[in-house]
Formats: sequence, C-alpha cells, structure tokens
Amino acid sequence: MGVNALALTLRIEDYRIARPNPHKGGTMATGVNRQFVLASRPTGQPSTDNFRLVEAPIPTPGPNQVLVRAHYLSVDPYLRIRMSEDRSYADPQPLGQVMTGGMVGQVIASNLASFPVADFVEGELGWQEYALTDAASVRKIDAKLAPISTALGVLGMPGMTAYFSLLEVGRPKPGDTVVVSGAAGAVGQVVGQIAKLAGCRTIGIAGSDAKLAVLREQMGFDATLNYKTEADLGRAVAEACPNGVDIYFDSVGGDISQAVFPQMALWGRVVLCGLMTQYGLAEPDVGARDMRRLLYHRVRLEGFQTEDWRDRYPEAVRRMAGWIKERKLIYTETVTEGFENTPAAFIAMMRGDNLGKALVKVGGTS
Amino acid sequence: MGVNALALTLRIEDYRIARPNPHKGGTMATGVNRQFVLASRPTGQPSTDNFRLVEAPIPTPGPNQVLVRAHYLSVDPYLRIRMSEDRSYADPQPLGQVMTGGMVGQVIASNLASFPVADFVEGELGWQEYALTDAASVRKIDAKLAPISTALGVLGMPGMTAYFSLLEVGRPKPGDTVVVSGAAGAVGQVVGQIAKLAGCRTIGIAGSDAKLAVLREQMGFDATLNYKTEADLGRAVAEACPNGVDIYFDSVGGDISQAVFPQMALWGRVVLCGLMTQYGLAEPDVGARDMRRLLYHRVRLEGFQTEDWRDRYPEAVRRMAGWIKERKLIYTETVTEGFENTPAAFIAMMRGDNLGKALVKVGGTS
Repeated sequence: MGVNALALTLRIEDYRIARPNPHKGGTMATGVNRQFVLASRPTGQPSTDNFRLVEAPIPTPGPNQVLVRAHYLSVDPYLRIRMSEDRSYADPQPLGQVMTGGMVGQVIASNLASFPVADFVEGELGWQEYALTDAASVRKIDAKLAPISTALGVLGMPGMTAYFSLLEVGRPKPGDTVVVSGAAGAVGQVVGQIAKLAGCRTIGIAGSDAKLAVLREQMGFDATLNYKTEADLGRAVAEACPNGVDIYFDSVGGDISQAVFPQMALWGRVVLCGLMTQYGLAEPDVGARDMRRLLYHRVRLEGFQTEDWRDRYPEAVRRMAGWIKERKLIYTETVTEGFENTPAAFIAMMRGDNLGKALVKVGGTS
Repeated sequence: MGVNALALTLRIEDYRIARPNPHKGGTMATGVNRQFVLASRPTGQPSTDNFRLVEAPIPTPGPNQVLVRAHYLSVDPYLRIRMSEDRSYADPQPLGQVMTGGMVGQVIASNLASFPVADFVEGELGWQEYALTDAASVRKIDAKLAPISTALGVLGMPGMTAYFSLLEVGRPKPGDTVVVSGAAGAVGQVVGQIAKLAGCRTIGIAGSDAKLAVLREQMGFDATLNYKTEADLGRAVAEACPNGVDIYFDSVGGDISQAVFPQMALWGRVVLCGLMTQYGLAEPDVGARDMRRLLYHRVRLEGFQTEDWRDRYPEAVRRMAGWIKERKLIYTETVTEGFENTPAAFIAMMRGDNLGKALVKVGGTS
C-alpha cells in the first residue's frame, strides 16, 4: 500500500498508518482467474461478508475479443448504490455475479487487430484478475501520458466528474467562494484545484486533520473544515465564507449539506454530484429539510452524472494531463496491494479512509 | 365576498360557504386613513392579534407625489416571510409600521403630470385606505385591458410568477408531465393552464375536492390529488405520473414535495417558487431529506423570485391578457369585502381557504 503523487511527495504518515491492510503485500497471479462476486446485499455499511471469492479458468478470447490482465482495480462510491436493489440509479449488481467496477489492465491475448498484445486499456471489467472484452467496452490508455493508474482516477471517471460537474454545472467565476465536501476524495481534491485554477476561493470539508493539511499545504485550498470535530459546522462554514457560498460541491448530503445550504449566496449553485451519506441507509434519512435559503437566494441545485459528458472526455483528459505536467494539478492515490484485499479496500474507501483515488494493485503485475 | 371569473361562471358554492367573513359587508370610507400596522411577530401561523388597526389623517401629496385611494389590497404568502425576522429574504416588516402589501387604487389628488387624477395604479403601498406615492413606486393600469383587480393577480405579481417560473425555469416541452402544488392558489392555477397551453399533461395538488373539481372541469387540469385525503400521496403521484414528473412546480415544500421528489423523471426540473409550509415554522422543518432521486435523475432545482423578471413584465402581461380574451386562460379571485377584514383575509389565505387570488375590496369604492 502506498500513496502516490505525481508532482509532490506527500507527507501524510499518520494517514498511512491508519489505513487497514488486512493481508500485507501483494500475491502473485495464481494461474486461475480469481473473482469477487456479490454474495449478499448490505444493509447500511457494506462488509466483507457481502462478497465471495471464487475461482474460474482464465478464459480464451473469441473472435473480436481480447484477454486483459488486471493491473489496477477501482473502488468507487457508486458501487455501493449498485449493491442495493434501488433501480432508480442503474440496474442493480446481480447476486452471484462478478462485481462490476473499473479496471486498468494489459492485453495479453488478442483477436482484435486494433488492440494488440501489450496495449493498456481501461473499462468496467469487474473485480477479477482477468477479463475478456470487445473493442467497444474499453478505451486505450496512453501509458506515456501519465501512470496507467490515473486512467481510473484523475484522468478517469473521478477526474471527468470533477472537471465537468464543477465547470459545466457549477460554472465558476473568478472570485467565487467554492465549498467542496468530500474534499479529500478522488473527485473533491480535483474539484478544489480546478476551482483555484478558475480564480475561486476554495474551502474543503473532510474528516481528518492530516488530510485537510494536505489540501491546504499541497493543493492550495484556502481553508478547510473537519466535519468530525467542528462543534457547529454551520457556524464554521458561515465564518469561513463571510460572503456566502457561491458554489457548493455536494458529494455527501445529510448533515454536511444541511450546514452549507443556509450559507448559499445569491444566485449560488449546488453541484449535486454524490450523496455518500445516503447510499447505505436502511431507513430514510430524516433531518432538517428547510429549503428556504435556496428559494430566497435563487439557488440552482442540479444532479450530475458523469456518463452524460462522455463525448467530451478527450477535451478534459488533454487539458488535465497538461495541468498535471505543469504541476498545476496534483493528485493522490491510496493503493491497496493484492487482489484479495479488494473488498477491504472498498469498505475502507466507503468509510473515508482514503486520500484521493482508492485503488487496488493486483499482485504480480508491474 | 365573491369569487369572480372573467370567462366562466364558476359553481363552487361549497367553497364559498367555507370562507370565513367575520365582518359581513363592506363599510364606507371613514374620512380618516385607516391602516393596519404589524403589532407583533407571529410564531407559527399568524393571527389577527399580530395586527393593529390605527387611524391617521388622510395625507396631502407633496411635490411630485400623488394620493391614491385603495380599491383592492393584496394578501400574499410572501408577507408571512416578511413578518418574521429572517433577513435572508428581504428586510423584515418593521413593527409598528404600516404592513407592506400590494394595492390597486385610483389617483384622487396629483402633483404629477404623468399621473393625473382618476388614473388607476398598482404598487406595494401597504395595508391602508389611502397612500402617497411617487411615480417610481407604482405602475399605471389600463382599466380597459381587464378588471383592475387583475393587476394584483393574474396580470400582476402572481401571474408574472406563474409565467416566468414555469416558462423560464421549468422550460416545458410538449408531452411533459407537470405537477403543480398549491394548484388552487393564485399562482398555481395559472401555472397549470400555461402548462396546458405549452402542450403538457398537468396534475394539480390542493386540499379541497371542490377546488380540485374546478381545476379539472374549468381549467383543464388532467388530474388532481387532494393532499389532505390521499392515504399515500407519494404512491398517488406515482400512479398519476406513470412516466415520472418532468416539472414539479413547488410552492409548498415539506411533505408534499417529499412525495413528488422520488417521482422526478430523468432531466426533471423542480421550480422552487414558494415554501408555504415553511414560512411560519417556529422550529426547523424535519423530515425525509433524501435527494438521491435528484442526483440519479439529473434533476435541476432552482429557486425563483419574480422581481428578477421585472424588465420582461410587459411581454407577459400582453401575452396573458390575450389568452384571457381568447378564453384560453381563466382565473378566479377570492374577494373579502371591507378594509377591516384584511388580517382575516390574509390568515384565511395562509390556511389555504382561497381559490385563486385572495383580495380585499376596500369599502366605498366602485
């Protein structure tokens, strides 16, 4: 396990110690295809019992297929939604089948001229060590552009989410005050930095002083708030934002959003990008639901789904890769080693243990 | 007291009986200027004790002023907000001063060439029988265009609210399903009819079967729901909107909004135009606050304030007056007779007793 950054070496030792790593070190590929299937649907927070490790033969590609060997697997909040039976997001993950999820891997056998052996690809190929795919289900990765793991993070879905949700829904103007919830996560840390590039003042909210220090000292956040230790978060937001909040990047919902809503500025925007506190609820979330401020201050709140912007991913990847090269944008990754630790990495991410993109490095790969 | 409609005679006898009228019949003007001042700030629902009747001399216009005699006073939900000390909407109504509120009246003395005696004007001139004003604080009314009372209703602030909030925030498309809360109110009944003109399917929510019958039978609503008698309003909305809700016109908040939110369609719009259930709360409103549907379905929710559209009022008045003439748009007014009944008319409107625009007809005028 390690925390990587392209442009800066981060000192977040406290944080590294806190990360669980139930099975130390990576294991070699085993000659079979290990897979995690969904064994049961969680109530509330997920546990390792919800997943079952199974073994299958390594498959052989058919016509127009390639065989991909996983290097990195992605664990993301949206997977929690798909573990439930709620059909309003997407079709639920079927029980007994390989867990869905993003993968970066290398083509090791190919019946597709356009994807020769040794190419790197990214796609939603699931929690397994090997996967068959066709050309339509993956995109090619330029390993010279950036480390391949970034195709699951800053140059992948989370980075695209940050770029399009902030710029196209939030529509920042220089001088705007931007409050970012989930600021230490894969999306939040990028949102805050793009907001800075757009000339905004940026306030990050997260649950660890060590992570907040990284946001301030390495990523240029102007101020940060620890939602776990602030006695009165609403008042703290008000004090940190004396002119109100022009853009609230909401990835959490619940009490944190309730603290921010009353501080929204005239013509403010709530970028509704995630509801981390809501996905696992066994009972409906009940709390203050006063929307008077949104009414009086003409606030626009808009739900965002990254996939709607797929046609414009190349623009964002090109621009963000440039920012990374110029050291205007840094990112962190929280990497758990070993395929067998994928459920534990997912659960830790859902608990908020990660700083930046949470990944699993599959053993036996470079 | 009476219920007027320009294009249709409405039979809503049940409803008329239900309206309270503590002081029957209008009284003549008394030679002094009677005024209602705010005596105390309400907790929860307002009562007549919050207002005090005072008398003052009828004033004389100074340079560039006119004296207006009130014909109609307007009682509107926004006044409840201003009775509280909450500064996030507008400056609170000061205690001991004449209650703010819309007035339609006639110029009876003038030091302004542009506003000669006998002109009709509309402006926020307060709960009083006579008011001084300058040219900037009122607009002239064309009494030939429509009855002068409409300048406080369908061709005034409520009509402007309906027109711009639905068309500019809701952005209806033919075939959209539009759910209107507060559908029997001054704004809601117009929203539903404009939605029909725009080719939408319209479902109205209100609290009286008699009023809902008017919406269906006279105003073309496709379906209606009584929030007071539906056992499961969320299920009723779902059944009435099998393809989901494309536009939710929200003037109430609270439980009704909570019933509609989970039915929002992909790319749906919530026009946040009022929060009638929230204005009088002594304690914060607590309830379900799950916004997952807004996230998953990319819903846009936007707070609306009519005053932002002032520059475009003439367009809306012209168009809506045309619809009224063509009998494409009908409206109702709930008129309480007698200046002294203004607080009672306001309280009844806040309780939802009105059908369409709630007005006070000041005694002794034509």
